[in-house]
Amino acid sequence: MESPGVLAASWINIMSSTPPTIAMGLRESRNTLSLIRATGTFTVNVPTSSMAEAVDYCGLASGKVEDKFETARLTLRAGTATETPFIEECPFNLECRITEQATVGSYIVVFGEIVQSHADESILVSPDGDLVDMDKLDPLIYCAGIREYRRLGPKVADAFSVGRALMGVSGR
Amino acid sequence: MESPGVLAASWINIMSSTPPTIAMGLRESRNTLSLIRATGTFTVNVPTSSMAEAVDYCGLASGKVEDKFETARLTLRAGTATETPFIEECPFNLECRITEQATVGSYIVVFGEIVQSHADESILVSPDGDLVDMDKLDPLIYCAGIREYRRLGPKVADAFSVGRALMGVSGR
Repeated sequence: MESPGVLAASWINIMSSTPPTIAMGLRESRNTLSLIRATGTFTVNVPTSSMAEAVDYCGLASGKVEDKFETARLTLRAGTATETPFIEECPFNLECRITEQATVGSYIVVFGEIVQSHADESILVSPDGDLVDMDKLDPLIYCAGIREYRRLGPKVADAFSVGRALMGVSGR
Repeated sequence: MESPGVLAASWINIMSSTPPTIAMGLRESRNTLSLIRATGTFTVNVPTSSMAEAVDYCGLASGKVEDKFETARLTLRAGTATETPFIEECPFNLECRITEQATVGSYIVVFGEIVQSHADESILVSPDGDLVDMDKLDPLIYCAGIREYRRLGPKVADAFSVGRALMGVSGR
C-alpha cells in the first residue's frame, strides 16, 4: 500500500443521493490528491470541534516532509469496503470510490460514491438507529473568507416540516 | 424573461477558488433546474437563521402550482452581472454563470462560476472591507440525515493559524 496521506478539505459536499455521491475540489498540486487518484478511493473523516488544531495542521503541513498522522495524533483504521484507511479520532467516516473527475481551473473535482459509512455509537440518536445526533457529533465547521473554525449552533426547526404551514397559501 | 423559480439547495458548495466556482446537485426533475439550464445562470442566496420556514417551504412547494415568492415574502432584485435576480431578504448573494454540467445518477450537478457577489453592509466586519462577519450573517444551516435546521455556533479558532504550533514537530 502507498503511504497514506491526509488533508483538510473544505470544498466538499454531497452532490447526489442516488447513488450517494460526494464531490471534493482540491488544488491540483496537493500531494494527497495524487494518492487519491492513484488508489481510486478516499475516506471522508468528520472532525469534532475539539480537533481544530489537528485539522488546521493537516491543511498546512506536507506529508512529504513530516509525518502528519504522528504529529496530529491521528490513528488509522482499515477500511472495510475499500483499501483506504479512515481516522479513528473522527466519529463519522465515509469510504468513497471515485466515479468521475473534472478539471475546474486549477482545481480537480473528484466525485466519489459513498460505499461504506462508519459512526461511533456515541454519536447516534439511539444505539440501534442510523441517525447521527448533531450535538453529539459536534462537528468542526470551517468558514471560508473570514477563515474561522466554528461549532455548530442550536437547532432552529425541523426540515421538511416547518415550511408546511405555508403550503397552498397562494395559488397560481 | 422566464418566470423566476426558487428552491432550497443543500447539495451545494464551492469547488474551486480559481476561478471561483460553485457546484450544486439537484434532482433532475426539479422545475427550477430547467429554468437554470435554460438561462445558463443562477443566484445563490444565503438565508439567515430566522428564515427557516421560508426556506423549508421553498424546498417543499412547486412553483408550478403556487407563487413561492409571494407566500414566502421573498423580494427579487435585479442581478448586476447576469439576468437572474437575487433575493433581498438573504444578506449574502452570489451570481453564477454555468460553466459545466455533469450527470450523477438521478442528479444533475451544475458548476457555476461566481461572477458577482452582494453583501448587506450590516454583515460586513467593517463597512469598507469585504469580509463577512459570521455572527452578523447568522446563516441557516441544514443538517441532512436528521433533517434539522441549525444556527452556526461560537468560534473555536483561527484557520491557517491554530495548526502552526504543530508544524515541524516530527520530520520524515
